[in-house]
Amino acid sequence: MNDITYMKLALQLAQGTMGQTSPNPIVGSVVVNNGEIVGMGAHLKAGTEHAEVHAIKMAGEKAKGATIYVTLEPCSHHGKTPPCADLIINNKLKRVVIACLDPNPLVAGNGVEKLRKANIEVEIGVLEKEALELNKVFFHYIKTKKPFVTLKTATSLDGKIATSKGESKWITGELAREDVQQLRHEHDGILVGIGTVLADNPALTTRRKVGGKNPTRIILDHQLRTPLTAKVVTDGEANTWIITGKTTSDSKQAELLQLGVKVINVDSEEININELLILLGEHGITSLFVEGGSAVNDSFLRSGCINEVITYIAPKLIGGKEAPTSFSGIGFPNLRDALQLSIKEVKQLGDDLKIVSVPKGEEYVYRNY
Amino acid sequence: MNDITYMKLALQLAQGTMGQTSPNPIVGSVVVNNGEIVGMGAHLKAGTEHAEVHAIKMAGEKAKGATIYVTLEPCSHHGKTPPCADLIINNKLKRVVIACLDPNPLVAGNGVEKLRKANIEVEIGVLEKEALELNKVFFHYIKTKKPFVTLKTATSLDGKIATSKGESKWITGELAREDVQQLRHEHDGILVGIGTVLADNPALTTRRKVGGKNPTRIILDHQLRTPLTAKVVTDGEANTWIITGKTTSDSKQAELLQLGVKVINVDSEEININELLILLGEHGITSLFVEGGSAVNDSFLRSGCINEVITYIAPKLIGGKEAPTSFSGIGFPNLRDALQLSIKEVKQLGDDLKIVSVPKGEEYVYRNY
Repeated sequence: MNDITYMKLALQLAQGTMGQTSPNPIVGSVVVNNGEIVGMGAHLKAGTEHAEVHAIKMAGEKAKGATIYVTLEPCSHHGKTPPCADLIINNKLKRVVIACLDPNPLVAGNGVEKLRKANIEVEIGVLEKEALELNKVFFHYIKTKKPFVTLKTATSLDGKIATSKGESKWITGELAREDVQQLRHEHDGILVGIGTVLADNPALTTRRKVGGKNPTRIILDHQLRTPLTAKVVTDGEANTWIITGKTTSDSKQAELLQLGVKVINVDSEEININELLILLGEHGITSLFVEGGSAVNDSFLRSGCINEVITYIAPKLIGGKEAPTSFSGIGFPNLRDALQLSIKEVKQLGDDLKIVSVPKGEEYVYRNY
Repeated sequence: MNDITYMKLALQLAQGTMGQTSPNPIVGSVVVNNGEIVGMGAHLKAGTEHAEVHAIKMAGEKAKGATIYVTLEPCSHHGKTPPCADLIINNKLKRVVIACLDPNPLVAGNGVEKLRKANIEVEIGVLEKEALELNKVFFHYIKTKKPFVTLKTATSLDGKIATSKGESKWITGELAREDVQQLRHEHDGILVGIGTVLADNPALTTRRKVGGKNPTRIILDHQLRTPLTAKVVTDGEANTWIITGKTTSDSKQAELLQLGVKVINVDSEEININELLILLGEHGITSLFVEGGSAVNDSFLRSGCINEVITYIAPKLIGGKEAPTSFSGIGFPNLRDALQLSIKEVKQLGDDLKIVSVPKGEEYVYRNY
């Protein structure tokens, strides 16, 4: 057992909480005294104890003289909880091993400085790439103030999302569809276009067998065509925000408001994706799961604002010139303009394939630890 | 070292000769005497020695009392070469381990019977599935008298084969394109539609760095529109066969014939894929590599005659409603009619992904040995 092994465990503790800590990062921590694990913990929910608090509490007396592994720099400021750096100092730990520094300007090196001033040995950068990958949403949001955008498509092997007569249920199998539920759970917001609402009347909720967190449902609906009877309006399962133009019907807006729907008016003639993301960031959405349809996908593609693409491919051939694909609209007429991605993960889910890719140059690491 | 290890080696010897033995199967053989490999061989080319002959020749005196591993049942009949069963008997081998029986009605168990009558110990079925996979083309041809059809597509992650303005060079990277050259080398015939000839004027030859065998170029051209100046007509690099209707211009047919092109007339109004395959089988084509375009792909899809699908996916998003996909035409309007496949192999080739799939129920095994 060495630093890497304990840090791996801390990363695994953190990964388990994916989706439940927003807007905070996910963090794991392990306390080791004389070659024995004496404490483990993870941050579970914004406003509650940080990972280090749980781990040190579990260690009790054995924290004294121990090494603490933590996937993110311990905080140094009084937020909703007292600073973890102080806790480490007060409990007389000897050594702190950190995977990556906290980009949050309130921390950003201050935690490390405070520890070192107290003569605690600090090591930084153990499994750093893995830690950056784990908190890619948090880092992106801190840096850009915009949500991290994951765009999902599900197609046949020949790229179709439906047959020529529009049949689309179901192209992918059960395991792929369950995986999508997990991704809904992990995101703050889920976004679709009005076309999808009118065609499928989806609930856009998280239906995991073990329960889960529903993302805020965000509907791009420039002309405010969302029916008052749509599931996203009436079911009360999760927040629904409709993004619409400045000039749409005041009375319909009032009716939607009364039904608990937030209506957000945007200035521009058509909805500008970059401006939308700034707006969603201001409203606290740190991660956005885009589930299309193909016109919305095209808008995101041309905006250059996609951070990750998840493609489920079912080994079926549907064929047909008129069968729709996952991206419609204008696209890129010149091949050199196409969005260049790097494949980061390929996984078989039942009969289907899941491909995770990110814009070229934005790779952290492969996810398998 | 045990039977499985030696048979694996024999399979590897065979696999190396993929593409150069047609219409014969690929076969490898290993001779082991007292725990020592004393002979190895593979069948290299139709009309030349079988694998067992090479391996027993290499073993020399040490063949006596040895075990011979062979991926396919030794032949018992006088073909272009004398029967291998006799060779084994005459060289006094003690034991024969066979991966799978030969479905060729001229052999089909007779080889085994002859060996057993000579009191040689025979074991059948070691790595049988792997051997069936290796010779899937041969077995298919023997059984159906039609070529094994491999259909290849190369698309972006969003299923496009070109941009909305038709730009398609190149969507996939160098390694994927090299892999296609290997597949051309391995097939007896390569098939495209007249649309591809008119649009791209391809040579359809095998351009491997180490050289390679050119497949027979087969053009579906119902109205005999192939230009007399097309590369497939003029370059003399490989055989070219044009499949056309009964009523097309006699003078053009004569001109093509004079240029060395075989013109094959079919009866039907449009070219029926199943009948075409019977015809190609009669002309000695045991394996057919279909490189489209998308109208030809649609014809093959609807014919139900696809035996393997190879999909190269480049991690790019091109977008665009008008950007073409790999299958046009009618396709399957009802999802339940879509061709259901099983993914057999997924491989990263540079930035791209190669997915090999076969119709559900026609799987042998995964190919990784």
